[in-house]
Amino acid sequence: MDEYRGHDIAGQASAEGPVTDAGYPEATAAEIDRACRAAAEAAGAYRARPVEARAGFLERIADELETEADRLAETIPAETALPEARARGELARTTGQLRLFAEVVRRGDYLGARIDHADAQRTPPRPDLRQYRVPLGPVAVFGASNFPLAFSVAGGDTASALAAGCPVVFKAHPGHPLTSAVVGAALRRAVAAADMPAGVSSLLYGAGNAVGGALVEHPAIQAVAFTGSFAGGTALARLAQVRPEPIPVYAEMGSVNPLFLLPGALERDPEALAQAYFASLTLGVGQFCTNPGLVFAVRGSALERFCSALGAAAQAQAAQSMLHVGILAAYETGTQRLSGAGGVQAIATGAEADGRAAAHVYRVSGETFAANPQLAEEVFGPSGLIVELDGLDQMAAIVRALPGQLTATLHGTAEELPAQAELIGALERRVGRVLFNGFPTGVEVCDAMVHGGPWPATTAAQTTSVGTLAIERFVRPVCYQDCPDALLPEALREHNPLGLRRLVNGAWQAPVT
Amino acid sequence: MDEYRGHDIAGQASAEGPVTDAGYPEATAAEIDRACRAAAEAAGAYRARPVEARAGFLERIADELETEADRLAETIPAETALPEARARGELARTTGQLRLFAEVVRRGDYLGARIDHADAQRTPPRPDLRQYRVPLGPVAVFGASNFPLAFSVAGGDTASALAAGCPVVFKAHPGHPLTSAVVGAALRRAVAAADMPAGVSSLLYGAGNAVGGALVEHPAIQAVAFTGSFAGGTALARLAQVRPEPIPVYAEMGSVNPLFLLPGALERDPEALAQAYFASLTLGVGQFCTNPGLVFAVRGSALERFCSALGAAAQAQAAQSMLHVGILAAYETGTQRLSGAGGVQAIATGAEADGRAAAHVYRVSGETFAANPQLAEEVFGPSGLIVELDGLDQMAAIVRALPGQLTATLHGTAEELPAQAELIGALERRVGRVLFNGFPTGVEVCDAMVHGGPWPATTAAQTTSVGTLAIERFVRPVCYQDCPDALLPEALREHNPLGLRRLVNGAWQAPVT
Repeated sequence: MDEYRGHDIAGQASAEGPVTDAGYPEATAAEIDRACRAAAEAAGAYRARPVEARAGFLERIADELETEADRLAETIPAETALPEARARGELARTTGQLRLFAEVVRRGDYLGARIDHADAQRTPPRPDLRQYRVPLGPVAVFGASNFPLAFSVAGGDTASALAAGCPVVFKAHPGHPLTSAVVGAALRRAVAAADMPAGVSSLLYGAGNAVGGALVEHPAIQAVAFTGSFAGGTALARLAQVRPEPIPVYAEMGSVNPLFLLPGALERDPEALAQAYFASLTLGVGQFCTNPGLVFAVRGSALERFCSALGAAAQAQAAQSMLHVGILAAYETGTQRLSGAGGVQAIATGAEADGRAAAHVYRVSGETFAANPQLAEEVFGPSGLIVELDGLDQMAAIVRALPGQLTATLHGTAEELPAQAELIGALERRVGRVLFNGFPTGVEVCDAMVHGGPWPATTAAQTTSVGTLAIERFVRPVCYQDCPDALLPEALREHNPLGLRRLVNGAWQAPVT
Repeated sequence: MDEYRGHDIAGQASAEGPVTDAGYPEATAAEIDRACRAAAEAAGAYRARPVEARAGFLERIADELETEADRLAETIPAETALPEARARGELARTTGQLRLFAEVVRRGDYLGARIDHADAQRTPPRPDLRQYRVPLGPVAVFGASNFPLAFSVAGGDTASALAAGCPVVFKAHPGHPLTSAVVGAALRRAVAAADMPAGVSSLLYGAGNAVGGALVEHPAIQAVAFTGSFAGGTALARLAQVRPEPIPVYAEMGSVNPLFLLPGALERDPEALAQAYFASLTLGVGQFCTNPGLVFAVRGSALERFCSALGAAAQAQAAQSMLHVGILAAYETGTQRLSGAGGVQAIATGAEADGRAAAHVYRVSGETFAANPQLAEEVFGPSGLIVELDGLDQMAAIVRALPGQLTATLHGTAEELPAQAELIGALERRVGRVLFNGFPTGVEVCDAMVHGGPWPATTAAQTTSVGTLAIERFVRPVCYQDCPDALLPEALREHNPLGLRRLVNGAWQAPVT
C-alpha cells in the first residue's frame, strides 16, 4: 500500500521499533513521546482556529475518507472478515458522524456559554461573570476491534475530540492495521488541506499493551477514549488514576443488553419475534457492544414456541468468521462456560466449522440465573441465553440485580406496557438506553443517542461515546470575571459574534438573527 | 441544645458508637449502613416527586434555616472563631444558594432534554430517540471546615445533589458539630414539611477518617462531594476507584490562586493595591480555598513600594483565631517551611499571640521560585509570597509550569492588557476562573461561576462545586428509543408538559408559552 510508511507522528513517518508479525512496527517510547509532545504543541494553535475552520476540517476528513471508499471496501473484509456491504455502510456512518460533529461545532451549544452581568448596586457589588467550555488538551484514542471505521482512526471518539478542539494521538487496533493506515493517510491529507497544525493528529501502532499504557501515562495526554474489553478499559482507568496528574478515561466496555418480553408481546407471534431476535443476535457475527445476549420471559407455551423457532433459526445458521482468531477463541471459551454451567440447557447450535463461530442459544430457569452471576456476563459473539421466569413479578427484581448495561429492551403490547412503569423505572436506573419493541444493535448517531451506562458497561456513566453529547467528554468549564470585552473569548463577548444561545442572567437567549 | 440527639439516620436519632471529646458520637458501621440503605430506599420515591415539590423542598430548607439565624450566629463563632457578621453573611449565601437551585429545578435545563424524531422513510428507518438526565442515586457529602454553612450540611453540595434528585448522606465536619446539628434539624423539619421520604437525608458524625471511608465504600453511594485538603480528597478518590463499582468523587482541594500584576497596574498606586491585596489575603484569616497566596510582578521601584505597603499592613495586623487548633498547627508548619526555604525573605510578620495566627508576607526571586516547586504549594491561612520577576516575558512560562488552580487573577490597565492575550490563554488552561483587576476571595453563587479547575485543585476539572452547573455532577444521560408517549418521562413527552427548552431534530426549541 502506497500510504503505509509506519507510524504517522504529526505527519512524519516513523518506524523505529520492532516489526510485528502483521508487518507493522511497535511504537517505541521515543515515538510515543514525540507524538504526545507534538499534540501538546499543536493544542494551542488548534483550539484557537475559528469555528468554521474546525468544522471544515471535520468535513474535509469525511470527504477524504470517501475518496477511499473502494479501497476500504477491500481492506476491511480482508482484515476483519466483515462483508463489503458492512464496510460501505460503516463508511457512510463514519462520514455522517464527522459531518454531524461539524454541525455541532457550528451550533456551539457544547460551549455552554453563560453570562451573569455585573450589579454595582448590590452589596457587595456583583462582578461580571461569564462561563464557557474549553478543550481539555491532547486525547489518547484507542481503536476498537469491531468497528474498523466508526470506532477507529477517524471514528466517533476522534471526531468528538477534534470537534471539542483537542488534538488526538490514536493507537490503531492491531486487528486492522492496513485499514488504519488508509484512514490515517486520509486524515493526514485533511490536516494539510485544512492547514491544521501537524500535531493535531498522530497514528501509532502497537500489538501489545505497552504502547497503550505508555500513551495513557504520558503527561501531555489529558483524557482517554477507549472501546473494548472490560479488562482493557479497567486497566487503562487504573493507569490513568495513578498518574501524578490523574486524567479521565472514557471506556465503553460492552454489556449483555437484556431483552424483556412481556406475555402479550411474546404471544402475538412467538416465531416472528424469535426470528427478529436471532437476526439481531447474529448481526455482524454478534460482534456489537449492543448485542442482546440475554432474554427474559415468563415460561409457558408461547415461550416454548419462541425457543423452538430460535433453535430452528440457530440450526440453519452457517458458521461465520469472527474479527480475528483471538476473538473466536474468547467466544468459544465463553460458550463452553455457558454449556457447562449447572442448569443451563442448549436449545440449539448452528453449523460448526474450524476457525469459524457457530451460533449458540441456551435456556435457563430464573432461579438458576439469579443464583449464578456469571450467567449475566457478556459472551462477545452470537450467543444468546433465554431466562425462563415463573412470573412477571420477577422481572423488576432481576433488573435491580443486573450489572450496569448499555441498553435494555422491553417488548410489550400497547395494552400491557402501561402497567410496567415500575419495571421501566428500574431499567432506566441500570442502563444508558431503554428500547421498546425493537433491538439494540444499530446505534443511531444523533443528538439524543446515549451509548453509555453504569459500570461495568462503562467507566463514566455520565457521558456517551456515540451521539453529539460525546463532545462534552473533552471540555471543561472556565469562568471569566470582570474581563474587558475585547479580551473575552468570542463565545462570551457581549454582542455574541458566534451567534450562540446563551444563558444570560438566568434566562436562555436565542441569538439575534 | 434541644435538637441534638446523635446522628440523624433518615429521621431517627442514633448514637451507638463511642463519644468523642467534643461530645459527639462516632458513627458505627451499622449506623453508616442504615443511613446509606435508607438513602437507597428513598431514591426512587424522591426522584419521582414532581418538579415543584422538589423545588419547594429546597426553598423550605432555606426557610427553616432562616428561623435559626440567631442561634447559628452564636454556634458558629463559638465553634469556628468566625465572627458573627460572617455567620450571618454565610447564612444568607446558603439560603440564597438553596433558592437558586430551586429555580434551576424549575428551569429544568440541567435535564438536557433532546429529541430526534423517527423517520420511517429513511433506510434503515430511524427510530424515535429521546434523551434526558437522571439522578445518579445517593450522594455522600463531606462538610468543609471553613464554611460551616455554605459548604456544610445544607450547603452547595447538598443543595445541588438534592436538586438533581439524589438523596444525601452527610458527614459533618468535626470542627462544627453543634452548627451541623442545628442545620440538620432544620433540614429534617423541611423533609417532614415537604413530605419527602425520610431517607432523603441523613447526618452522621465522625472525627477520624473511618466514617468517611466507610461511607465512600458503601455500595449504595453513587457519588461523593468533598471540599477540603489535597490529602483528604485524593484519599477518598482512591477509595472510590477501588470499590467493586467505582464512583465519581468531586473533590475541591484548594489552591494558591496566583495574582499577576502587570507594570502599569502596579505603578498606578502600589500602596492601594498592596492594601487591597492584603485585605483579600487575610479575609477570614486566609481560610478560603480562593485565598491568593502568590503574587507575581516585575521587580522595580513600584514593586518595592508594593512590598513596603504590604509589610506595613502585615505589621499592623493583629493575630487572629483560626478555625481550630489543627488548622493553626498546619499553618505554622507551612509558614516555617516558607521562612526556612532558601532564597525566601520575610517582608513582615503580623502580631503574634499564642494560639492565634500571625499574617506572614514573603518575597522571593522568580528564579528561586521556578527552581523550588514547594513554593507553589498552598499554605492555608494568611500567608502571601511575592515573586519578583526580571521581566514580563517570564510570566507565561511561570503560568505554564503552575499546578492547576481554582483561580488566577490578572491586574492590568486598559492600555497594557490587550498585549497579554498569550498570558490570558495560558491562564485559561491552568485554572477554573480568570479574574481581572479584582481578588478571588468571594465566590459568587450564580449560573456562570466556576469553582473548580485542573488537578490538583480538584479531582474533576469538568465540573464546579459552586454555581448552578454543580447540579450536573449528580446526573447522567439516559436515552429512550421508540417509547410510547404516555410512558415517557415528562421531560420527554411530545407536548412538553414541563415547558422545557429542548433540542429537537438538531434545533433548540423554546417552550410554547
